[in-house]
Amino acid sequence: MDLDLMRELSVKTDSRIVLLVLDGLGGLPVEPGGETELETAETPNLDALAASSDLGLSRPVAAGVSPGSGPGHLALFGYDPLRYRVGRGVLSALGVGFELGENDLAARINFATKDGSGRISDRRAGRIPTEEAARLVELLDSEVRLQDVETFVVHEKEHRAVVVFRGEGLSDALTDTDPQRTGLEPLPVEPTDGSPEAKRSAALANAFVEEAERVLEGRHPAANTVLLRGFGMHPALPSFEEVYGLRAAAIAAYPMYKGLARLAGMELLKEGEGIAGEIETLRRSWEEGYDFFFVHVKPTDAAGEDGDFGRKVRIIEEVDGLLPRILGLGPDVLAVTGDHATPARLRSHSWHGVPFLLHSSYTLPTARSFGERACAGGSLGVFPAQEIMGHLMGHALKLNRYGA
Amino acid sequence: MDLDLMRELSVKTDSRIVLLVLDGLGGLPVEPGGETELETAETPNLDALAASSDLGLSRPVAAGVSPGSGPGHLALFGYDPLRYRVGRGVLSALGVGFELGENDLAARINFATKDGSGRISDRRAGRIPTEEAARLVELLDSEVRLQDVETFVVHEKEHRAVVVFRGEGLSDALTDTDPQRTGLEPLPVEPTDGSPEAKRSAALANAFVEEAERVLEGRHPAANTVLLRGFGMHPALPSFEEVYGLRAAAIAAYPMYKGLARLAGMELLKEGEGIAGEIETLRRSWEEGYDFFFVHVKPTDAAGEDGDFGRKVRIIEEVDGLLPRILGLGPDVLAVTGDHATPARLRSHSWHGVPFLLHSSYTLPTARSFGERACAGGSLGVFPAQEIMGHLMGHALKLNRYGA
Repeated sequence: MDLDLMRELSVKTDSRIVLLVLDGLGGLPVEPGGETELETAETPNLDALAASSDLGLSRPVAAGVSPGSGPGHLALFGYDPLRYRVGRGVLSALGVGFELGENDLAARINFATKDGSGRISDRRAGRIPTEEAARLVELLDSEVRLQDVETFVVHEKEHRAVVVFRGEGLSDALTDTDPQRTGLEPLPVEPTDGSPEAKRSAALANAFVEEAERVLEGRHPAANTVLLRGFGMHPALPSFEEVYGLRAAAIAAYPMYKGLARLAGMELLKEGEGIAGEIETLRRSWEEGYDFFFVHVKPTDAAGEDGDFGRKVRIIEEVDGLLPRILGLGPDVLAVTGDHATPARLRSHSWHGVPFLLHSSYTLPTARSFGERACAGGSLGVFPAQEIMGHLMGHALKLNRYGA
Repeated sequence: MDLDLMRELSVKTDSRIVLLVLDGLGGLPVEPGGETELETAETPNLDALAASSDLGLSRPVAAGVSPGSGPGHLALFGYDPLRYRVGRGVLSALGVGFELGENDLAARINFATKDGSGRISDRRAGRIPTEEAARLVELLDSEVRLQDVETFVVHEKEHRAVVVFRGEGLSDALTDTDPQRTGLEPLPVEPTDGSPEAKRSAALANAFVEEAERVLEGRHPAANTVLLRGFGMHPALPSFEEVYGLRAAAIAAYPMYKGLARLAGMELLKEGEGIAGEIETLRRSWEEGYDFFFVHVKPTDAAGEDGDFGRKVRIIEEVDGLLPRILGLGPDVLAVTGDHATPARLRSHSWHGVPFLLHSSYTLPTARSFGERACAGGSLGVFPAQEIMGHLMGHALKLNRYGA
């Protein structure tokens, strides 16, 4: 999306947009000649909606490229996922619900075991149990002190945690310390460019490891050091308000997606239990002055990752059953799509086109069902996911004419 | 294609890709309401393959733009044909099988006749016969000597030949000497930018013409000078190995296509007789450690250029008959497409969409036949040919996920 064009043309109106994202919605047939998860699902409500909607297949990043959740959502929100990169450390920080600031530098931590000769003998500290690791994380969070920067250490699960460095003049142009296999010494963090920020950040990261080893000494038989990887900084996205003039709200059950929405400047609404709870939150917040709602449904992706075609079908059907509650609110624009495909057949994110449905009063319907192949022949064609925000804004009559 | 992204994501795997290019495959109906060459052809094997393949229409360069063979193939190989330009001189050098080096400067030569007043009286030297021209080419190749650079002169056909300048610091930012019509003096070669390389190269090119006239003097009644045009240098493409991590092989009968494949760093395999011979070469080389095969079929284009609809249909049917031999090898990914359209109706390359079929285990089939209109409604939509390599790499599971 050309964000400058959006800035130039966007206008405030009363219309309301709902972007319903079924994570990993796109799929594949299991057998040749078969149907995808979405095509298989009994979706009378989505099919009826399709019959009065624009359809298309969206491409998240590039031909053949399977996106992670970060780039997938950035593209949905209209940001160029190749320009704005969300490092693993940042996603981890977002995933644990850490409020990442614009100058913060984040990295993933693995607790590990270093033997007497200084080599890594276990990259997961004997698969340290979650409760023991949580105790060590608290120690690191409270006892590690570095010059000029604050550090925060937050636990993820088992041997995994996140460290955030907060201060001025940091950079994520840094290498990992993880040697990737046992029997090797951990690597020092090195700057990957010549900037003074990277040099300084590398020194701070190395000092953190040294301090962490001092704090951990004698506290646990296996977890006597930490490995750092995936350094990343807040991508400093221009906000939804600034670009689109939208007061945007996010309803998501998982911290990572909440975090991605926060990066775009969305407000987080407290979600209820399950998908129905999320939609109940939407209903309760409908008159609160928001003009954009991002609703994130996670279980479709999880079912795809598990290779569970049937469960993915059932979750899609569950969403279909809840659709009338969203339609009952009377959104001016309702889009239903995914951030990428997660075909059960592949058990992972994939590069395939993602079904996209846009309902408004101004559509050119082409089909009577919602599915990958109906979308391929739709009036929006096969198009970059980054264009979705433009479609939503246009159909919401929130864009001025361009030029006289 | 974003080559940096490919460099970042590509991984070595055991999967093998075949890119079967029917030159000038795209076509047009001769009569309104009729079918194209591909749609007319009886292609039971391609149709069966289409029923388990992704389909799309590819655009080689830009809307409405008919590509030459150079840009057409560069796009197929994932290179931006607007960024990487292959000068006519370079294509001619490749076309005669000359091994062009990265610093070489090439130009096309026309033998011509200059009258007593220094004006060009015949731009083709009285359509000098091939054998006579070949003799003069040998003279130029052995007798022209320039300071600091080597020169090679190779014959094409009739009055046409190629000159290659080899040395350091050359540039192709040069104008032609051909005045385009008779009765005018030949033009001096001029630099088109202010670089010292262009200035030096212009002087060398002008010295070459002077030397050539000296060598030719008294050797032939009509061919007493040469006109130079289409200066071009090796486009210095990053190689397939570097960008995609692919060990790539090319099977092509014509020198120009071998040359284009060499530009991308492909190894040339010795082709057998005709299309069947090319596919036999593929079979023989299947276990030789290559993970990418470019197979080029020329006669479709030649038939289109001749305006011979029926012959083009028959050649497509011949390829269809040979298809089981390729499928029998079990490629993980097989794509069938063209480098551009050459509709018999136009007797030339054209700007039309090129049918594209991609077969793998991970497709969303949309049709039961292979043809332009089936492709237009396919799951890949209408897309830039530069994206083809991304599609192939993705379906071959040779790309890591982008972002966390």
